[in-house]
Amino acid sequence: MLSSAVPIVEPSPMEGYSSAFLEKEAAAQAEFEGDEGGEHDPESNSLRNPLLKRTPTLTSSQYAVVGAKVSHIESLDYEINENDLFKHDWRSRSSGEVLQYIFLKWTLAFLVGLLTGVIASLINLAIENIAGIKILYLARFVKDKRYVTGFVYLTGVNLALTMVAASLCVVFAPTAAGPGIPEIKAYLNGVDTPNMFGASTLFVKIIGSIGSVSAGLDLGKEGPLVHIGSCIASLLSQGGSESDDYRLKRKWLRFFNNDRDRRDLITCGASSGVCAAFRSPVGGVLFSLEEVATWWRSALLWRTFFSTAVVVVVLRGFIEYCNSGRCGLFGRGGLILFDVSDVKVSYHVNDLLLVALVGVLGGLLGSAYNFVLHKVLILYGRINERGRMAKLVLSLSVSLFTSICLYGLPFLAPCTPCDGSAEVVCPTPEGSGNFKQFNCPSGHYNDLASLLYATNDDAVRNIFSSSTPSEFRLLSLLIFFALYCVLGLVTFGIAVPSGLFLPIILMGSAYGRLLALALQSYIHIDHGLYAVLGAAALMSGSMRMTVSLCVIFLELTNNLLLLPITMFVLLIAKTVGDSINPSIYEIILDLKGLPFLEASKDPWMRNLTVAELAAAKPAVVSLESVEKVARIVEVLKHTGHNGFPVVNWPEGSAELHGLVLRSHLVAVLRKKWFLKERRRSAEWEVRERFTSVDLAKKGVTLEQVAISEEELEMYVDLHPFTNTTPYTVVESMSVAKALVLFRQVGLRHLLIIPKYQGAGISPIVGILTRQDLRAHNILAAFPHLANKKHK
Amino acid sequence: MLSSAVPIVEPSPMEGYSSAFLEKEAAAQAEFEGDEGGEHDPESNSLRNPLLKRTPTLTSSQYAVVGAKVSHIESLDYEINENDLFKHDWRSRSSGEVLQYIFLKWTLAFLVGLLTGVIASLINLAIENIAGIKILYLARFVKDKRYVTGFVYLTGVNLALTMVAASLCVVFAPTAAGPGIPEIKAYLNGVDTPNMFGASTLFVKIIGSIGSVSAGLDLGKEGPLVHIGSCIASLLSQGGSESDDYRLKRKWLRFFNNDRDRRDLITCGASSGVCAAFRSPVGGVLFSLEEVATWWRSALLWRTFFSTAVVVVVLRGFIEYCNSGRCGLFGRGGLILFDVSDVKVSYHVNDLLLVALVGVLGGLLGSAYNFVLHKVLILYGRINERGRMAKLVLSLSVSLFTSICLYGLPFLAPCTPCDGSAEVVCPTPEGSGNFKQFNCPSGHYNDLASLLYATNDDAVRNIFSSSTPSEFRLLSLLIFFALYCVLGLVTFGIAVPSGLFLPIILMGSAYGRLLALALQSYIHIDHGLYAVLGAAALMSGSMRMTVSLCVIFLELTNNLLLLPITMFVLLIAKTVGDSINPSIYEIILDLKGLPFLEASKDPWMRNLTVAELAAAKPAVVSLESVEKVARIVEVLKHTGHNGFPVVNWPEGSAELHGLVLRSHLVAVLRKKWFLKERRRSAEWEVRERFTSVDLAKKGVTLEQVAISEEELEMYVDLHPFTNTTPYTVVESMSVAKALVLFRQVGLRHLLIIPKYQGAGISPIVGILTRQDLRAHNILAAFPHLANKKHK
Repeated sequence: MLSSAVPIVEPSPMEGYSSAFLEKEAAAQAEFEGDEGGEHDPESNSLRNPLLKRTPTLTSSQYAVVGAKVSHIESLDYEINENDLFKHDWRSRSSGEVLQYIFLKWTLAFLVGLLTGVIASLINLAIENIAGIKILYLARFVKDKRYVTGFVYLTGVNLALTMVAASLCVVFAPTAAGPGIPEIKAYLNGVDTPNMFGASTLFVKIIGSIGSVSAGLDLGKEGPLVHIGSCIASLLSQGGSESDDYRLKRKWLRFFNNDRDRRDLITCGASSGVCAAFRSPVGGVLFSLEEVATWWRSALLWRTFFSTAVVVVVLRGFIEYCNSGRCGLFGRGGLILFDVSDVKVSYHVNDLLLVALVGVLGGLLGSAYNFVLHKVLILYGRINERGRMAKLVLSLSVSLFTSICLYGLPFLAPCTPCDGSAEVVCPTPEGSGNFKQFNCPSGHYNDLASLLYATNDDAVRNIFSSSTPSEFRLLSLLIFFALYCVLGLVTFGIAVPSGLFLPIILMGSAYGRLLALALQSYIHIDHGLYAVLGAAALMSGSMRMTVSLCVIFLELTNNLLLLPITMFVLLIAKTVGDSINPSIYEIILDLKGLPFLEASKDPWMRNLTVAELAAAKPAVVSLESVEKVARIVEVLKHTGHNGFPVVNWPEGSAELHGLVLRSHLVAVLRKKWFLKERRRSAEWEVRERFTSVDLAKKGVTLEQVAISEEELEMYVDLHPFTNTTPYTVVESMSVAKALVLFRQVGLRHLLIIPKYQGAGISPIVGILTRQDLRAHNILAAFPHLANKKHK
Repeated sequence: MLSSAVPIVEPSPMEGYSSAFLEKEAAAQAEFEGDEGGEHDPESNSLRNPLLKRTPTLTSSQYAVVGAKVSHIESLDYEINENDLFKHDWRSRSSGEVLQYIFLKWTLAFLVGLLTGVIASLINLAIENIAGIKILYLARFVKDKRYVTGFVYLTGVNLALTMVAASLCVVFAPTAAGPGIPEIKAYLNGVDTPNMFGASTLFVKIIGSIGSVSAGLDLGKEGPLVHIGSCIASLLSQGGSESDDYRLKRKWLRFFNNDRDRRDLITCGASSGVCAAFRSPVGGVLFSLEEVATWWRSALLWRTFFSTAVVVVVLRGFIEYCNSGRCGLFGRGGLILFDVSDVKVSYHVNDLLLVALVGVLGGLLGSAYNFVLHKVLILYGRINERGRMAKLVLSLSVSLFTSICLYGLPFLAPCTPCDGSAEVVCPTPEGSGNFKQFNCPSGHYNDLASLLYATNDDAVRNIFSSSTPSEFRLLSLLIFFALYCVLGLVTFGIAVPSGLFLPIILMGSAYGRLLALALQSYIHIDHGLYAVLGAAALMSGSMRMTVSLCVIFLELTNNLLLLPITMFVLLIAKTVGDSINPSIYEIILDLKGLPFLEASKDPWMRNLTVAELAAAKPAVVSLESVEKVARIVEVLKHTGHNGFPVVNWPEGSAELHGLVLRSHLVAVLRKKWFLKERRRSAEWEVRERFTSVDLAKKGVTLEQVAISEEELEMYVDLHPFTNTTPYTVVESMSVAKALVLFRQVGLRHLLIIPKYQGAGISPIVGILTRQDLRAHNILAAFPHLANKKHK
């Protein structure tokens, strides 16, 4: 089943249709564990004999909504895996190869910036030209009073463009729908969402973005550009677990075969995307840092900064090129998107009060937007569930509704004479001015049409324009604001690439300007600046960013003197918003069921030990260093675990040898590297058959491996494949403290060691994974914790 | 012995006079371990019977240069300590108290911003007035051709001001000398430098800063402001281990008794300081993030942002107040220090080449500066060693030299007629103009005097000034550049509060403008902008920051269009510099011997296991859960360790109970909470005597505790004081991987557990501390690792 943009599960994994998967899995697990028994015998810790009898209740799902389909997701291996093969790989690297690796990292960061810059420029070029021509023709129809033709024309073109975007998304790359930022956030947190960063996703995202933005839908190209940057990074570094992806298998890329390096490059990609979207190099770096990335190092700060610098150079070159008029309708402009640097900012103490009001209302509006959008997304999820046709119909309906509103509403606005105020330059016959004549007589302009018959970027530029207090009428602004509130809610969930930034900026700027008009007699700051502050407030109220948003707005508007009040507004709006509901990205992550690990520890986590948590899970399934093939196959078939402790029981003691990953076990079975008897192999034996590259390969499943009866009776030496140094915690550690370790170091599996050690005591009490440490899952297993705040 | 600003040890701890301490300690340790013997018997692991015979070679120093004195330093406890008392403390907190705690955190962040802003404003006010009056009178003497009187006057005033600053530093607070940023960096990394954040340090730093900057010395108030911000934060949160400090012992502060909360507040303080110094709120946050802080969370980003927002509001209010002329000679100005926003930036491809040249040369100059400054600091260390008098004489000599140069050199410059170019406005009789007449006839100005007879801020403003290509002559700029290269090197190490930012900016701006003059015919960008780029290049070449520097320069100059080339220059200069030597802060940290843990892992760390590392240390000294007082006293007296594993040996197994801190042991001994027999106490017993506040107290030493012979035979129940959940790693883990854990989680002690467990095997193989994981110390013990890059 292919799918679209909209998440369809309720926050609780027990609702929505994905629960079917979850319940099935839980049942399988229960069945698998239910009929077990037997005393603990450390010498024969077979799968059928769990070490201790337990009543497992902590169920953790390995499924999440990807696109609109429930898919199996996996965690990424950000931990340094110290198994013999990888260790040998490092040690055998010559200093030349180390230099090659460093050079490669920087080259890739450069390429990410370069390609993102070029693609962003091309997308801008395409959108400006398509939308420009569309609006030019429309203006002619209206001028000639051919209103019906105009309507049919506008609707038809918009529907066609939407159709292109939506059908590409629905048929080829369901994961290209939506902004993609939540999935990138999850990837950098350690969750691999399948098919998220493939070549087809990239292609559909580019074309779909052009289509949907040109179609006049209320969505931006900013989110998609972030996703595009990350896709480029992932493709260059071969990240993600793609099946539909044209892998570049180059020898020089073989050092780039671990998830950590890919993570760094995808961070560069995300920064480059934001930079390309807002022409904001520092803002891009900070956005990645504050909103997207989970781990951060100074070295990475520097590399992302390099990428965004490259993007800026590319954008600047492109703008210089277009300024000579060779880019069709692509506007002549500088690096600054919404320049308001010509406004003198001076304010008094009573202005601060009004600005605080902008912040408070912005926070309220932002959280209200989050709340309603949440409901709409759930509803859309139910619709999109019905199949491709439903998704297409939904997208086209939204497009139709948008076209009707955009076309019809300006007729409600009265005409304003151009000579009424000195500030307004009336449209020239070429129609290149910002003010649209529309249905008005010559020498007049229609203020609402000026906002609606423009690309979204131009609309924002109009509202931000300064020294124009009487340019827009209260009524027109009210209509505009109401329209974009509705459109912002109904558009986001449809099956096209769509960003959230611009809709919120549009809404926010209208809100700011409305407030300025309403309080006209009390304010001393320019109305255009109020629009900027309104946009910042709504962004902060919905997305809850601070420093990065501040810098992005600084780089968008080029007015440094505005910075202190922008900071003020952002802090207030975020505080108000945070006290009401989570940020929009958190809501989407939650809707999709992506197991994102938050940094914050709930207070009750201090009252629960990891041993108690492990006791609520099925017993640990462990392997021995030299294990029978039959048992490995059985373990892989009957459990969903992705890591197995390797424990040996030499005379009178126990050895914690390490942890072996499912993917490595499958790789061994696939290569059929079996031994006739139970013995430890020599180092050279394994190196004859395996390289570290073989182990780094992803996406091979057990089903692709056929093993004969005879082979089942043979043995595998797991020594060379076992990560001998998994991170461990003592069983008495609180969940809060273990979570710090898990998140800070970027783990996939955390082993719990017992307090008491000795003969016959297993050196492993349990294993915790990302799902086990999520507050939501823990509370499902330990409901009493949620109620009592403190013992 | 009191001390001054200058570090005096060579990078290797075996040179300089601190080596005396190190060798003594090593000798003591060798003696202590040397005469031991006996077989391993787990039931009686007495201190005199190490578990295994080893040849300890990994010596780790607990001493560093603080001020100019070698002092005992300690690590901070950033780990969550899960002992019974602390656990009970959390659990007994009501939700009201939790709210109070959150409110307190934000109130303190607000207060830090407020106080830093106010103090920064007062410092500025004092400096501008003192320096202004000084220069005014001087100008009169010179105008009247009373050159000798002028010289005596200038020298006398400067010497007096230097005397005030230096004598305060030397007598009352040696740690107030220098910038303080390296020590703050170390604090946030987990190293507590004594007497660094006390009330006396704060006071001396404020007065000393005013004195030294007014004295015309080549140093800035920026670094000291960062230190002042951190001092305020530390005093508010009672951080640091101060003896000279007026502690506020308020009940409402008792929730703020852990190092983690203090660390967060000190981060806020450092950001506020940078913000106050450069009037750069976003730059302040980023500076802390990139340069100062080791750990970072999104929540902290937000809080520091709040602090800097408060600082900006205070600064703005102060500037508004002063703009009405009530601040004496305090300049009327806006929030932007060096505004160059009126320059139109446009450049071509060949400009990029020249700009790249600025970057390359900046990187070379910056690293050369680091190199020479390093040598000068070592030399100064030797001088300062000789006592207070030597320090004072050194400071006064530098002041005298500075005065002679400042006074004498302008006579070398010829006079320039004011009407020669339209760009120059000649000095008015009030002397408030930027151009100084000095010894020139009316209608002329002396360009070198314009730079030298001004506060450092004004000098930078002059050099940055745009559209003034012919304002400064090549000769004058050459003299200025050469002078400030020399002054920048000789001034930094003297015993007054001194920042590095402004000297480097002065040097760099002169260098940039010189380059622009030299390449006059090839460049298309304004000379003032070249000065900005030169300053940025030199900063990056010496301090090696990128994003934060970029934003600070953006906020200093208010020219967004300059951003892309600034990024370009910074990246090049940092790359060039990094390939030559470490950053100036790293050099200073190294000179002081502060055990700063870098994020970077050297490749050879992958080839060494923690077990090998532990084997090179003295055997672990462990305690039992219920331990004899005599043994605790013995252990505390004979070892320098700050943490001891608590291990029990129940029948047939071993129990890893946890880790107990030296400070907690001392607290127990001090309270004399002893048991007559070897038994486990009940929970209520300990709570009757101890609260978590008792344990949080710092700075009590064993010497302050007197214990009778009778008490030595009693027992202590360590259960309630033991952190039952120390972080552990398996002995086979590589040092590189363990370092990730240690640094990411912010540890003080890391326990090593064995691979094989069983009866009679100790559950602890060793303990690693910060010192053991420093590359420098490891290489001293394993010299062969440095040579071979790979096995």
